[in-house]
Amino acid sequence: MQKNLLQGFKVLDFTHVLAGPTATRLMAEMGAEVIKVEFPPVGDISRLLPVQKNGRSAYYVQQNRGKRSLCVNLKTPEGKALIHDLIKEVDVVVENFSPGVAARLGIGWDAVHALNPRVVMCSISAFGQTGPLSALPGFDYIAQAYAGVTGMIGEAEGAPMLPMLGLGDVNTGVHAACAIGFALLHRERGGQGQYLDISLLDAYAHCHEMNVAMYSLTGNSPTRAGNHHYAVCPLGLFKGKQRYLCIITLENQWPALCEAMGQAALAKDPRYNSNANRCAHADEVIALIQAWVDSIPSDDEVLSILENAHVPCAPVLSIRELVEHPHMQLRGTMRAVDDEKLGNFTTPGMPLRFSEFPHNVSLQASHLGADNASVLGELLGYDAARIAALQAAGILFSNPDT
Amino acid sequence: MQKNLLQGFKVLDFTHVLAGPTATRLMAEMGAEVIKVEFPPVGDISRLLPVQKNGRSAYYVQQNRGKRSLCVNLKTPEGKALIHDLIKEVDVVVENFSPGVAARLGIGWDAVHALNPRVVMCSISAFGQTGPLSALPGFDYIAQAYAGVTGMIGEAEGAPMLPMLGLGDVNTGVHAACAIGFALLHRERGGQGQYLDISLLDAYAHCHEMNVAMYSLTGNSPTRAGNHHYAVCPLGLFKGKQRYLCIITLENQWPALCEAMGQAALAKDPRYNSNANRCAHADEVIALIQAWVDSIPSDDEVLSILENAHVPCAPVLSIRELVEHPHMQLRGTMRAVDDEKLGNFTTPGMPLRFSEFPHNVSLQASHLGADNASVLGELLGYDAARIAALQAAGILFSNPDT
Repeated sequence: MQKNLLQGFKVLDFTHVLAGPTATRLMAEMGAEVIKVEFPPVGDISRLLPVQKNGRSAYYVQQNRGKRSLCVNLKTPEGKALIHDLIKEVDVVVENFSPGVAARLGIGWDAVHALNPRVVMCSISAFGQTGPLSALPGFDYIAQAYAGVTGMIGEAEGAPMLPMLGLGDVNTGVHAACAIGFALLHRERGGQGQYLDISLLDAYAHCHEMNVAMYSLTGNSPTRAGNHHYAVCPLGLFKGKQRYLCIITLENQWPALCEAMGQAALAKDPRYNSNANRCAHADEVIALIQAWVDSIPSDDEVLSILENAHVPCAPVLSIRELVEHPHMQLRGTMRAVDDEKLGNFTTPGMPLRFSEFPHNVSLQASHLGADNASVLGELLGYDAARIAALQAAGILFSNPDT
Repeated sequence: MQKNLLQGFKVLDFTHVLAGPTATRLMAEMGAEVIKVEFPPVGDISRLLPVQKNGRSAYYVQQNRGKRSLCVNLKTPEGKALIHDLIKEVDVVVENFSPGVAARLGIGWDAVHALNPRVVMCSISAFGQTGPLSALPGFDYIAQAYAGVTGMIGEAEGAPMLPMLGLGDVNTGVHAACAIGFALLHRERGGQGQYLDISLLDAYAHCHEMNVAMYSLTGNSPTRAGNHHYAVCPLGLFKGKQRYLCIITLENQWPALCEAMGQAALAKDPRYNSNANRCAHADEVIALIQAWVDSIPSDDEVLSILENAHVPCAPVLSIRELVEHPHMQLRGTMRAVDDEKLGNFTTPGMPLRFSEFPHNVSLQASHLGADNASVLGELLGYDAARIAALQAAGILFSNPDT
């Protein structure tokens, strides 16, 4: 009986920081054996990121629970040989260096494929492995700006705004895991390994469900529009007594909102009786709803009235409120992680839920090089003396204070 | 020889609008046979969304290329029987109704699983299938507000801002496709079908790479911070002559930025010599960089200087600039779609790239019910007379003007 979905699959993971580690973390959560390869002396630089406690980074722990840490100097011939031997033993290789770096380290697709034709290799980068931008250094927000996403956030006449979370990196990691899963499916059906080229830019650009086609077909380039949508009305944020409230109605919910506001006649008003007409009178519609919200004594009452009328609505929650919300706790959308150095803290839950396998499995993060001996012993048959010699020669490295 | 990755897989697709159709569109792009089930008289309501031309919605076409359209009245016994027969023939069922609706329509997991134990079924919803919020109606921005995402976008002292694109829906669709791929892999290895519960809320909450742990470990709830990051400096938007520019340096790039600005000494200034120190003097760091940007005659020159110094930077592109950018065209990050009614227009490209299969395959969208006869003929052996009778009885429906 399989304990988890990916039991038996081995992943050699050369990723760092966020997009790459998200892809391999999802696989670790599904039960794959993920061997994270780190370089001395620091390893994944996210080990230095906040929040730190007892020498341990919560950022690192969140993205790397369930992975073994192998810390090896890839610039030595012995280090490279050891990695090449491991490549022969695994199903998946993932890296998120800048394009070209993996090849220079001897772990580019050509080398990996020659060593093991069954390997699925996934490269994750800001702009992709080819094209005029590919050589530029990039992070989440760099690709976000190029993808036309940043420009679509903020007041119409004001500066664009940055979302203060890793929307691009995390979702690019999900795109990568998705591609890896389908490539493994292909292999399981008799196919060979293959190479996957996943980028932040492609993943961000993918999210324009309407903007690109709108420009292309009308010649009008959509622009940012504050906190009310430019093509659906009402769809936006209203100022409550304690917080902002999101209220949305599509065609079928608009009459319910009018009735909930005690102004049922508005639903048939020719100025407001279709989304197109409401968009044409958006300022009036927004003012009408804001005036109603202003007239209700509390936000809870606004939400309660709208929920009873089946009008989609939401409080704009703070991080604190998200973490402590009963739904998030009950569903495991937020989960407690128990780390040996950080103690108990909360991270987002596993977003993929499978009826046949456990959700939010308990997994630990490794200190730098914690698994050198066990990985090389189990996969390559190295004995203790050989591992000690490699460690003494600086080819293997570990740091229990991480 | 397989023409595409998912050749031979059949998907029965009960999804509408965006998150669900994204999941099945990705599978169609990978070669799966996707049968989109729509209900008379309108079908997927996104057929009514803009941009419209010749009675056709570009929104619908973008999310539904490569799918066959079967339009059937599921509230008739014959319609339901026909769908139940199809469930026996497919590998995957996907739906994104509000929780409970699929069961009431006779296509809940219990019914589907009883009909075909090998089916992988994926439900996509705003809040998930269980928990106190699950019964509430929800869209992208509703889950975004609950997930603490909306609250992290905008000026610290101002209102939260809405990103004007479907970040949540599209990425939730990718999460769903990812889960489906791994569940099919499990089945291919000898496992049975299973049920996947994917939600916008989980997918959005998943993106807090740092905020949740930071609140949990420090007791301080992070807040939105405009267009400069609260924990990395410099990471933000600067005002150029023609546009905003994103500039980011981590520890290893800061000296290069100082040198590029002609102020190499800043790199060793004790106020600015670490990210923590720069964050403590963020206003000064931002002002220094802005003053330098102001001193350069053009944005192109700013970008050119920074690119030559290997400092991550980007112009904040408009939708028009995104669509027309050479990199996007060359890479297929933007692609031309040729639709019989809309003509030629641009959509985002397929974000998953497989070395062994073609990228951005040419696919057409179907008008409502276009494939009634071929689907029922091929999968269930219905002859023309039987299909004509069902059509005459209003159990099947089609509309070539869509």
